[in-house]
Amino acid sequence: MKAVRLHEYDKRPVVEDVPEPKASGPLDVVVEIGGAGLCRTDLHIVEGQWEPKTGVQLPYTLGHENAGWVREIGSAVSNVEVGDTVILHPLATCGLCRACRAGDDVHCENSKFPGVDTDGGMAELLLTNARSVVKLDPSLQPADVAALADAGLTAYHAVRKAVPLLYPGTQVVVIGAGGLGHIGIQCLAAMAPAEIIVVDRSQAALDLAKSYGAHHTVLADGKHVDTVADLTGGNGGQVVLDFVGEKGTESEGVSMLRRAGSYYVIGYGGHVDIPTIDIISSEINVIGNLVGSYNDLDELMTLAAQDKVKLHTKSYPLDAVNEAMDDLDNGRLQGRGILIPGRS
Amino acid sequence: MKAVRLHEYDKRPVVEDVPEPKASGPLDVVVEIGGAGLCRTDLHIVEGQWEPKTGVQLPYTLGHENAGWVREIGSAVSNVEVGDTVILHPLATCGLCRACRAGDDVHCENSKFPGVDTDGGMAELLLTNARSVVKLDPSLQPADVAALADAGLTAYHAVRKAVPLLYPGTQVVVIGAGGLGHIGIQCLAAMAPAEIIVVDRSQAALDLAKSYGAHHTVLADGKHVDTVADLTGGNGGQVVLDFVGEKGTESEGVSMLRRAGSYYVIGYGGHVDIPTIDIISSEINVIGNLVGSYNDLDELMTLAAQDKVKLHTKSYPLDAVNEAMDDLDNGRLQGRGILIPGRS
Amino acid sequence: MKAVRLHEYDKRPVVEDVPEPKASGPLDVVVEIGGAGLCRTDLHIVEGQWEPKTGVQLPYTLGHENAGWVREIGSAVSNVEVGDTVILHPLATCGLCRACRAGDDVHCENSKFPGVDTDGGMAELLLTNARSVVKLDPSLQPADVAALADAGLTAYHAVRKAVPLLYPGTQVVVIGAGGLGHIGIQCLAAMAPAEIIVVDRSQAALDLAKSYGAHHTVLADGKHVDTVADLTGGNGGQVVLDFVGEKGTESEGVSMLRRAGSYYVIGYGGHVDIPTIDIISSEINVIGNLVGSYNDLDELMTLAAQDKVKLHTKSYPLDAVNEAMDDLDNGRLQGRGILIPGRS
Amino acid sequence: MKAVRLHEYDKRPVVEDVPEPKASGPLDVVVEIGGAGLCRTDLHIVEGQWEPKTGVQLPYTLGHENAGWVREIGSAVSNVEVGDTVILHPLATCGLCRACRAGDDVHCENSKFPGVDTDGGMAELLLTNARSVVKLDPSLQPADVAALADAGLTAYHAVRKAVPLLYPGTQVVVIGAGGLGHIGIQCLAAMAPAEIIVVDRSQAALDLAKSYGAHHTVLADGKHVDTVADLTGGNGGQVVLDFVGEKGTESEGVSMLRRAGSYYVIGYGGHVDIPTIDIISSEINVIGNLVGSYNDLDELMTLAAQDKVKLHTKSYPLDAVNEAMDDLDNGRLQGRGILIPGRS
Repeated sequence: MKAVRLHEYDKRPVVEDVPEPKASGPLDVVVEIGGAGLCRTDLHIVEGQWEPKTGVQLPYTLGHENAGWVREIGSAVSNVEVGDTVILHPLATCGLCRACRAGDDVHCENSKFPGVDTDGGMAELLLTNARSVVKLDPSLQPADVAALADAGLTAYHAVRKAVPLLYPGTQVVVIGAGGLGHIGIQCLAAMAPAEIIVVDRSQAALDLAKSYGAHHTVLADGKHVDTVADLTGGNGGQVVLDFVGEKGTESEGVSMLRRAGSYYVIGYGGHVDIPTIDIISSEINVIGNLVGSYNDLDELMTLAAQDKVKLHTKSYPLDAVNEAMDDLDNGRLQGRGILIPGRS
Repeated sequence: MKAVRLHEYDKRPVVEDVPEPKASGPLDVVVEIGGAGLCRTDLHIVEGQWEPKTGVQLPYTLGHENAGWVREIGSAVSNVEVGDTVILHPLATCGLCRACRAGDDVHCENSKFPGVDTDGGMAELLLTNARSVVKLDPSLQPADVAALADAGLTAYHAVRKAVPLLYPGTQVVVIGAGGLGHIGIQCLAAMAPAEIIVVDRSQAALDLAKSYGAHHTVLADGKHVDTVADLTGGNGGQVVLDFVGEKGTESEGVSMLRRAGSYYVIGYGGHVDIPTIDIISSEINVIGNLVGSYNDLDELMTLAAQDKVKLHTKSYPLDAVNEAMDDLDNGRLQGRGILIPGRS
Repeated sequence: MKAVRLHEYDKRPVVEDVPEPKASGPLDVVVEIGGAGLCRTDLHIVEGQWEPKTGVQLPYTLGHENAGWVREIGSAVSNVEVGDTVILHPLATCGLCRACRAGDDVHCENSKFPGVDTDGGMAELLLTNARSVVKLDPSLQPADVAALADAGLTAYHAVRKAVPLLYPGTQVVVIGAGGLGHIGIQCLAAMAPAEIIVVDRSQAALDLAKSYGAHHTVLADGKHVDTVADLTGGNGGQVVLDFVGEKGTESEGVSMLRRAGSYYVIGYGGHVDIPTIDIISSEINVIGNLVGSYNDLDELMTLAAQDKVKLHTKSYPLDAVNEAMDDLDNGRLQGRGILIPGRS
Repeated sequence: MKAVRLHEYDKRPVVEDVPEPKASGPLDVVVEIGGAGLCRTDLHIVEGQWEPKTGVQLPYTLGHENAGWVREIGSAVSNVEVGDTVILHPLATCGLCRACRAGDDVHCENSKFPGVDTDGGMAELLLTNARSVVKLDPSLQPADVAALADAGLTAYHAVRKAVPLLYPGTQVVVIGAGGLGHIGIQCLAAMAPAEIIVVDRSQAALDLAKSYGAHHTVLADGKHVDTVADLTGGNGGQVVLDFVGEKGTESEGVSMLRRAGSYYVIGYGGHVDIPTIDIISSEINVIGNLVGSYNDLDELMTLAAQDKVKLHTKSYPLDAVNEAMDDLDNGRLQGRGILIPGRS
């Protein structure tokens, strides 16, 4: 079968023929890929940034946002059948450690991460396990939802954690209305009665945010911290969701917090640096957010099937992976790029 | 191997030779039984009370409170090794349904219940799966903790759910200081700063309760509802844990509740019958409690290893199962009866 | 001033002149009534049903759902000023007991209940205290929201307690789409991503429910329990909100519950009667619900100001109180009746 | 009456005669002081560090940790009577803002802070309001508990917030076993079944910690981060409570966290500085902690009455305030210094 393989860091991956994976283990599932999301993490992997962390052996197949149809299952798989449409949780987890047993499978002690530390889904077939496959509503197409598997799931997870703080009359500030942020805004609008204030450097992103349910949009023009203060009566928001996490949003986000408020870190790259006296005197919290759980992904797919969460995508055949990477790298890609193996 | 087999309802089980189970499936675990708890449910099974519910095919092996040592494991088992000391969660769950994925594995949609709907642990060996085995601290002996696997786990689970309501200055009323109740009292003393009031018909049980951490004991002599009212300043307890659930405790328990209090049903046999106007005008809750989760059992074993939860037991060789059942049936059994296969 | 006074049980109240109340205490607030809701409780008060409970001295002024404008304040009142538009929490609470200090002021140990145990708001002026007045958004008119002060607040409170259980993919069953129920449905639609199933005996009420956000409506025609089972895949709902609480809904509501589900009692008149074995084997809960807190009312007013919660009302001048009571008693009143003192 | 008055920053306060306060407002309470805690904040106030924050007008009376007996009450006070023994919540709050109405009175929008921004309790009498007085169990003496009013309450509050994370089998790391920390350790031992690991630079403090319930003590000798890693199986604690918050404990504390763990900031002086990638990849939280609520103080007094929380104190007559300050400043004060007006 065809697969997008990385042979050497700092060189573009190549599309080549590799043997098809088989469901040899009892919980194995082989999925025929219907869509594999391309994201900035793929560029970072190519650049070698993840090498010290994963130590993955080259060559291997990229692709960590995957959806498709079940092609083959192991003897102990009972939750899906051949032919089912599925989206894949980014992690293939063990199901036996304390975290897995607590529903917190993202902190599994024995997980694999296809496309990052083992062969991923930019290929005709992907080998994963029964614990990663979420069955989809027949109305959903793999290519339309694949990019929700990781980026979307991260945004959903953070929003779901924040929802209990967002009763009627509260205000939530969203920093960054890009790839993750625009999913986050849709999740907020679907799940919480709070007023949504969105901050971004792009007016186009803000216009889109408004169509997704933002009540106020604020252009990040240098006066945006003051503008948010004005919109919140000088108090700040009960919750700030920072989908950027670098280039100053870390301190701006904290300064937009109300007393006893919570700052959710989702994007990364920068530093959170706060005097301890400010943390205690305002009794604020900093909340870390990783990707969501399997059940989170199932819930996000419910919102997608209800048409409450939508993605802008542009599809490419698998052979065009480098064209897609160029488009992404050069800012020519509106929405998320999706590689579609069957298409040529 | 030897096993305690039920051939016909309303007739006592027999000890006979059966083939040894094998770990044929990938997640199978075969456990050499070190202790199998005997409980009233076993008598009810023999009487045929569970037949309409389980439809289990006779003959089969009894024993649903089991602990021992891992003898053999399937190819995909990664959480225990041969030789490990383990206690068995009463359910062998699937790990793939929503409930299992949420850490709420007791509500698994595809579980088996050894000793109830399939072969149990009153035998030299028991076949279960990787998801039911909890590794034990080396200081714990299977025969000492086996009876915590079901009865103890149910008590622990109810207490753990109630703990968030039990801040300093609150009062919790425990109805019934018998098999489950005396575990519940120990769990309360270990986990909550509340004042513990215990009600029972037996003075001996109350004396034991006091040694386990009860602050007040009340003999159920007909005036006990008034006595509890006096002990709670006429207000009732924030929480009532009813380990009996029949013969009048259902209405007495509700009447011992403070405004906005919660009545936890653990024992069963009777009816909860409350006018809806009383439910809303006092804003009280009735909380159902089933057995605990896998992680609950792991936590209970931590308390046991810390010597915070202890069981009174009397051990019998496997061959003496009917003597043990007679003792239980005739009230001659102090503490829990434990069958020990290796002993003769 | 004019007031609707009850002089004798089982006789209609009369409109007569009484002295105006004064803000003599430091936390007193005198409110000029803009609208006082009429509800079935008023009929029950006239019938004497509440007499044993309140022991209120006759004659006194009816009216427990009140909104208007602040006319006079005591020396220690700092949260409202003369002229402010306000809605009144049904209870005037003490602010000093444990419940008040915990934000759970509905369980205040020293509250008064104007219109029920002291003079109410069917009058030109009402005396209450600073802790009961919620300042309104200028867009809201007292006559439009008055009926949310008690009935609406009860519905909101129950929904807010249920919301944490209602993630995407869950189903909530609402029994009764009348006075409280139709507010509850609007609150659910505004606050939770769950699928809403509404059961009622009136097709007109169901049609209205659909316009308020119900996803499925079920006519209570004798087959409705089965219909709900079909709509929930045979499992039942995670949450059942029973706004009726009598005439069989108590047992039907429980039978519509999924395993580990919660049945919220809001309406009253009947009995909840469940075998303890059913409570534990399904691990279900029965949750009592009283009126909401002061902050709950503030939040509900936010939803009203955002046009997410609307009431159908019909207004009457104060002099027409008995016409309004006749209309209510004879089923001629569509929506809620509102008495308006200033109108003649 | 006599009072400890600050006339000029950087000069020691003087004991002088001032007029007695009167209960002129309806919610006023005048308390005869039985004990006023002296703490490091008092030294900082004298040094002028708080001046820019409070802008308090000099001269004024110091003392923000107060307990005593009710001498006089305003007309609307219903929760205490003259003669009652009381401890004072550090803040006199309004009871009318959203925070007060939610039980979160520490974030009151209109509070006063006696001893910091208005006259405090180093005097024979103190004027406060009904919302700050917590009635004491007769077994408690004001001089014994006064220092729990602020320092102890802060420790209790942080522990109470952490308790839901501390189920059996978890580990909590306490950094700093001094004034606040040794109260925190006692609260942990009383309220949670977790294993308690205490880190401090003083062996004497560690020995005391052990007597208060610490399971492991670690001398902060430069290798303490590694020692904690060893004690937690290389994983870190689920919770770290940092009672120091400066001089490196901020980064050490974060490095002692397990995946998905929470770092509680209580002490202050330093900075929390964490790369956002570390926050998200481990999904850790930073939790701010201010002083506790009124109900928190009431609960802490329950623990004190149950002898579960004890303070080491040394008492001084009011006239000896400067001797006490010298002792504190020079490290000669073991335990907390308490000024006792009646004593001479």
